[in-house]
Amino acid sequence: MAKKTRHKGDEAGRPAKTLHVDAEHKAAVGRRLRRIEGQVRGIEQMIEEDRYCVDILTQIAAVHSGLRAVAKETLRHHLRHCVRDAMANDPGSLERTIEELLEVYHRVR
Amino acid sequence: MAKKTRHKGDEAGRPAKTLHVDAEHKAAVGRRLRRIEGQVRGIEQMIEEDRYCVDILTQIAAVHSGLRAVAKETLRHHLRHCVRDAMANDPGSLERTIEELLEVYHRVR
Amino acid sequence: MAKKTRHKGDEAGRPAKTLHVDAEHKAAVGRRLRRIEGQVRGIEQMIEEDRYCVDILTQIAAVHSGLRAVAKETLRHHLRHCVRDAMANDPGSLERTIEELLEVYHRVR
Amino acid sequence: MAKKTRHKGDEAGRPAKTLHVDAEHKAAVGRRLRRIEGQVRGIEQMIEEDRYCVDILTQIAAVHSGLRAVAKETLRHHLRHCVRDAMANDPGSLERTIEELLEVYHRVR
Repeated sequence: MAKKTRHKGDEAGRPAKTLHVDAEHKAAVGRRLRRIEGQVRGIEQMIEEDRYCVDILTQIAAVHSGLRAVAKETLRHHLRHCVRDAMANDPGSLERTIEELLEVYHRVR
Repeated sequence: MAKKTRHKGDEAGRPAKTLHVDAEHKAAVGRRLRRIEGQVRGIEQMIEEDRYCVDILTQIAAVHSGLRAVAKETLRHHLRHCVRDAMANDPGSLERTIEELLEVYHRVR
Repeated sequence: MAKKTRHKGDEAGRPAKTLHVDAEHKAAVGRRLRRIEGQVRGIEQMIEEDRYCVDILTQIAAVHSGLRAVAKETLRHHLRHCVRDAMANDPGSLERTIEELLEVYHRVR
Repeated sequence: MAKKTRHKGDEAGRPAKTLHVDAEHKAAVGRRLRRIEGQVRGIEQMIEEDRYCVDILTQIAAVHSGLRAVAKETLRHHLRHCVRDAMANDPGSLERTIEELLEVYHRVR
């Protein structure tokens, strides 16, 4: 189980890791991101072909909604593991966990 | 200059094209999309490395804001050329042009 | 027809007025705003009664969507009259009209 | 302390109540909502006076951001009390608590 540290990186400066990751969650989110990557390349293609602006904007909206699904899945995973772990076993980190969640909640809306 | 047709595709079913495209606009939007593509691949990498969920959500927020900049630039281009052309020279297409803009406005928000 | 001035207010400092307003548009938007006002008072009441947070958040979402409908209707009116007037008859104000629209477009999303 | 029930209403059909409410939270949110109510009335007035559409849209954006502040404060309160209570003491309701949060997250964005 990857040790999870809360600050930006652990003592050795390595980036923070999530405590526990469901393999199924990881595979599903990975697939969705690869699809989004393809959609972004598709928009580059449309720009190259001088496609109609409204069609391009419609594709951008599709990428936004794909990203929101990834964010929702990531948030679900975060609530199930990191937030629950903090709330149940680490009252000292409760306020920081809540503020972190509120901060991200507003940025990813 | 690629002839612009308004419906989803022209008589031969080819996708609709924008009437006039500034080369500068095209290059700037292309660069930004390639950066976004790289950011999406970066998020895939973070998922692979079981990185902390909040860091992943922060990166997703960054892709959202990059996409919004592309949408704003595309909309600016659309207003300058297609919408202005319709409003000044093609009163018959005014209502359709406005409804198209409002529809996109809601989807890309 | 109220004279429309573009800067924040006209020579006498009076707030800028829209060139032309459909009575029907005005009545429909007014009704919707009064409903929104009532919804906001309803949320105040829920707070007073210590109602469940998720129910309160659901009501807030309802007010957001009512506001977006008012914004869409106002934008439709703006495109039909002010933007069209500028694009068809006042090329000098085209860039400012477009930038104004893009600015508002992003703030009201 | 009002007993909190999770479904839409308790056995007697009364609406669900939040378990614990900070008086300070309640006063702050109440003040903000009354200000929002005043802003909505202000927009009604602007419509009556045929004010410039862009100025009206700017005011609508201000109400949106006031509402988001109320949503953030309500969510903070929900996380501190209801979610924490469920996560620490009521594992059976964990999934429902998480899905409720995710549902609200999408609607209030």
